[in-house]
Amino acid sequence: MSYQEQYDYFRLAAEEALRSAVPDDVPEPLASAMRYSLMAGGKRLRPVLLLAAYNMAQPDITPALPFAAALEMVHTYSLIHDDLPAMDNDDLRRGKPTCHKVYGEGMAVLAGDGLLSLAFETMASSGHPRAFAALRELALRCGTRGMVAGQCADLTAEETGGSPELLRYIHLHKTADLLTAPVVMGMTLAGADEAQIDAGREYGRNLGVAFQIIDDILDVVGNEAVLGKHTGKDAAENKCTWVSVYGLEKARQDAALYTGLAVKSLDSWQNAGNFLKTLAQRTLMRVQ
Amino acid sequence: MSYQEQYDYFRLAAEEALRSAVPDDVPEPLASAMRYSLMAGGKRLRPVLLLAAYNMAQPDITPALPFAAALEMVHTYSLIHDDLPAMDNDDLRRGKPTCHKVYGEGMAVLAGDGLLSLAFETMASSGHPRAFAALRELALRCGTRGMVAGQCADLTAEETGGSPELLRYIHLHKTADLLTAPVVMGMTLAGADEAQIDAGREYGRNLGVAFQIIDDILDVVGNEAVLGKHTGKDAAENKCTWVSVYGLEKARQDAALYTGLAVKSLDSWQNAGNFLKTLAQRTLMRVQ
Repeated sequence: MSYQEQYDYFRLAAEEALRSAVPDDVPEPLASAMRYSLMAGGKRLRPVLLLAAYNMAQPDITPALPFAAALEMVHTYSLIHDDLPAMDNDDLRRGKPTCHKVYGEGMAVLAGDGLLSLAFETMASSGHPRAFAALRELALRCGTRGMVAGQCADLTAEETGGSPELLRYIHLHKTADLLTAPVVMGMTLAGADEAQIDAGREYGRNLGVAFQIIDDILDVVGNEAVLGKHTGKDAAENKCTWVSVYGLEKARQDAALYTGLAVKSLDSWQNAGNFLKTLAQRTLMRVQ
Repeated sequence: MSYQEQYDYFRLAAEEALRSAVPDDVPEPLASAMRYSLMAGGKRLRPVLLLAAYNMAQPDITPALPFAAALEMVHTYSLIHDDLPAMDNDDLRRGKPTCHKVYGEGMAVLAGDGLLSLAFETMASSGHPRAFAALRELALRCGTRGMVAGQCADLTAEETGGSPELLRYIHLHKTADLLTAPVVMGMTLAGADEAQIDAGREYGRNLGVAFQIIDDILDVVGNEAVLGKHTGKDAAENKCTWVSVYGLEKARQDAALYTGLAVKSLDSWQNAGNFLKTLAQRTLMRVQ
């Protein structure tokens, strides 16, 4: 299979798992609000990372699917809450009206709460023998010293202005933690050893920093129609970004630097690491 | 020990666990917002229920403390989000300004998200051999077919009006699920058998329904200074409550009925059930 065929294989498996992820007995309009945001498309990067990492040591990805779905639920909840008027106040996401625009603010808060709860419920009910370790990794990465910490720093940086230290904190936690978790979770579930998981963690962190730098660049130079969201928002809101702190030229260089570090992290996995290495390089190509 | 001494013993143990529950490396103002709401007082009913249920089979409550703290985090997160302008729009909680009044709406959303995440992190990191089963119980009870489902029904009932079926759904999920979880979790952690846990589940559900009926009654007849929150809000907002559907007289009768069912549920536990039986009866005394 080509890289793209492989990516689509993982992505479609995750989409399939997500389609039935919200149980039938969840009341309306909560169920619809959750499904609306969960099925709004996107690259499914986090589930793909988890399934690919799992697939490096296990041929059948089926047992990893509940965790892939859980990751996308956590990612989606963070987007729903992040888009709220009290946070980033976005009315467009992936080319569609945001959750609170369609279902109202109160229901959007609940849809986010519901997705975060359902993520843990899904992992805890998976029956996978290594479910607990994977769940713990996600709890740590999505919480108050992980993604939520990064969002707090992002929110306060709008008032206090940016610094290189704050920028790194935001990138590591707001973005990199939720790209590290899938790799570590996938390898953990697959029974990889500590050294292998360490390599995956290193890959995830570097990919995450590169990914957020690229996102910062695209907000400046990107095309709204292609991205499906408004661009130029970071500057308008005085966000602390890699471009605002270091300028566009160094941002491009650093995106390449961290992508290179990510690729190198997986050398010990030899050929099994090829898909994830290519994934990092393809991500970089968006700004080259 | 008297009943009150026993209650205070459990409550103070939970308060102590909560005092150090938010890790030192959580960034500001997120950490302060979380601690502000977590340490705003209250009866600590859910942690007390968990510790008491655990204590029915185990003399030393120490191993159950992380779960008691996790329960109060989930309860507190639900209050913070429930108080938001987009939800119940409350500016007063336990006699103090609500979280979003002090820290702003965006930070209040994050403080709630952070507390829910930290609850799962705390349980997953507890090292208790039965942590996974307890965590799963809480995930089910607080999520999209539990507490969040109840809040969704509560929110939509303001528009559609109440019915006995909807009322029961709201009471069971918005309130009873998070009073059932502590009892089931405590007994599960303590190694109780299935029949014992079934009795605890029955107790929790009946106590929960009684508790919410009593809360509905107090909103009509209660004293703001004693309750620390505005009363009469339910009627003003067209809430679906036991009083609005059945009237005050039947609400009082049903509170006594469900309290009686809760007490009876624990008969198989013999003397070990005395504390929880008294707890249910004391709760009822607030409206008699």
